[in-house]
Amino acid sequence: MNKSVLEKVIDGIKPVSQKWIDKAYERLDSLTKPKKSLGYLEELAAKYVAIREEAKPVIGGKRVFVFVGDHKVVEEGVSAYPAEVTRLMVLNFVGGGAAINVLARRAGAEVEVIDIGMAEDPGESPGLIRKNVKCGAANIAKGPAMTIEEAEKAVKVGMERAAKAADDGVTVVVTGDMGIGNTTPAAALYAAYLGLPPSQLVGPGTGLDPEGVIHKVKVVERALDINRSMCNGPLETLAALGGLEIAGICGLCLGAASRRMAIAVDGFISTAGALAAMQLCPAAKDYMFFAHQSAEPGHRRFFESEGLRPVLDLGMRLGEGTGAVIALQILEDAVAIYNEMATFADAGITPGA
Amino acid sequence: MNKSVLEKVIDGIKPVSQKWIDKAYERLDSLTKPKKSLGYLEELAAKYVAIREEAKPVIGGKRVFVFVGDHKVVEEGVSAYPAEVTRLMVLNFVGGGAAINVLARRAGAEVEVIDIGMAEDPGESPGLIRKNVKCGAANIAKGPAMTIEEAEKAVKVGMERAAKAADDGVTVVVTGDMGIGNTTPAAALYAAYLGLPPSQLVGPGTGLDPEGVIHKVKVVERALDINRSMCNGPLETLAALGGLEIAGICGLCLGAASRRMAIAVDGFISTAGALAAMQLCPAAKDYMFFAHQSAEPGHRRFFESEGLRPVLDLGMRLGEGTGAVIALQILEDAVAIYNEMATFADAGITPGA
Repeated sequence: MNKSVLEKVIDGIKPVSQKWIDKAYERLDSLTKPKKSLGYLEELAAKYVAIREEAKPVIGGKRVFVFVGDHKVVEEGVSAYPAEVTRLMVLNFVGGGAAINVLARRAGAEVEVIDIGMAEDPGESPGLIRKNVKCGAANIAKGPAMTIEEAEKAVKVGMERAAKAADDGVTVVVTGDMGIGNTTPAAALYAAYLGLPPSQLVGPGTGLDPEGVIHKVKVVERALDINRSMCNGPLETLAALGGLEIAGICGLCLGAASRRMAIAVDGFISTAGALAAMQLCPAAKDYMFFAHQSAEPGHRRFFESEGLRPVLDLGMRLGEGTGAVIALQILEDAVAIYNEMATFADAGITPGA
Repeated sequence: MNKSVLEKVIDGIKPVSQKWIDKAYERLDSLTKPKKSLGYLEELAAKYVAIREEAKPVIGGKRVFVFVGDHKVVEEGVSAYPAEVTRLMVLNFVGGGAAINVLARRAGAEVEVIDIGMAEDPGESPGLIRKNVKCGAANIAKGPAMTIEEAEKAVKVGMERAAKAADDGVTVVVTGDMGIGNTTPAAALYAAYLGLPPSQLVGPGTGLDPEGVIHKVKVVERALDINRSMCNGPLETLAALGGLEIAGICGLCLGAASRRMAIAVDGFISTAGALAAMQLCPAAKDYMFFAHQSAEPGHRRFFESEGLRPVLDLGMRLGEGTGAVIALQILEDAVAIYNEMATFADAGITPGA
């Protein structure tokens, strides 16, 4: 990919129009309920209307994208699970037995599993999309995770998945991730993008004890130090501190926004990818629904820093897209309210307050 | 109804067994995810397993009960909407155009609309269950809302709806309400049951301005003063300060718990009914899922006071069961996770932390 492809996609992302938001609230206020009494549900509906620019918005196809990548930084002892679990979980995804499979079935969403940066070749497998850019991100405590070219390539994989989805009639994409060790690069990215200290962003991930967390903070601090000179732009920072799956999620977000699809952003890892996309193109945020507040403590700092709010707060910390696919159902509830409720005029009621 | 029927139902409510909770966590910990990484979702699943006492818990029928009642206290100027809206909204429920109809369709739940205390006779209407106990609760600022006999009768209506649902194969009941003015009796009940000052419990309801809220606080204080001598037991307090629909919800909760059905409790009004049930029988709480934190400020005080947490916090304040039916889908997600995910043994993974 040359830079201009990325730039072209970014140029195609337009902020959503306030006119459509206003139009949506006009209808919401005409429905048989006290004004604004459905709270955040109404905001979700209005945002979706403005994303789609449809008076009767349709939820078309729904697709979850689980980007999979490994992280050599696990050799620093930052994860409770061994690296080979990434590959075993991919087999589980493909077999339909993981949490994301169960939840996506419930929500009527498809699941795409994409090898974008696995360390071990998973081999051919029906349902596995093989787009490996690099066999695992390099150890960020010792140098950059990727070259700029590799980061661009991974971003482009995400963009291509988004374009394919739009062509297939998908209107909501759901971000997901799998990669043992990936809370470490995610925390490093938050620190670099938001200018916050790693101690506020590093958490236990899949299950580190408090001593492990203290060690992990030091690893992230080292990663920031050693890569500082490279972090002189959003893409450069993503390359230095990120992971392949995080870059893929970034590309998915950009590609989805450029095609006016709504984006249900999952937890701590996915939000790091979404944040990279927002750094590359602030208007991409208009297309994002932040699904849930992860139990990973650094996630709260992101919401505070950006003045955003999650749909759900269920204390989840699994990734895979699990929180986002639950929130997807609430987005669908909101759109159904918008489309299907009777108006005051229909019901012969004079609206009150 | 004589007292012994109510007592019999209450005697039939058993606390859920810790043995089943432990059994549920044993399975949850064997699934392909870090331990407890699905957070509150796992608690929901474990609670449902313990309610149903089934190793592979089934979600059978799901039914929303919208209890409808009027409140003569509206003559004190405590509501932004006129009382006749109750009847018009009942027509809307029966016609399928209200928010609860839309959300229940999405969730695959049936909706029962029960006239338990409407001021005006709604007439025959397909889909409306006519169990009117009294044509609106009396003005609580001037005396008791109901006699003890009327309150018992209304509680029994709720119990009968629960029994019918259990016979029909329902496993989750969803509480709902409609009644212009009913945040006033609800606030009075919270004050009496929890021993909290009305100023912490009264809010804008469907849309009072700040002056209206101050006036409403005074009305609730007057209701508490004038009925103080009658409030010498949970049922007596419900009769003095409640409403017919709140008593119906109380009975639904007791009846559901006695038949081991899960109860998705909606917002501020429904929780007042659930609280009455908990006062009559503390074990009933084991069957309740508190669906959402209402925007009505007093609701938060209930959660703090009882040490409970809601599933959702979406700033909703509509009632009808709308928040509960959204949370119902999350309960179903949790149960699907429990039943359908692969175990570590299935996936050939050695569990980590």
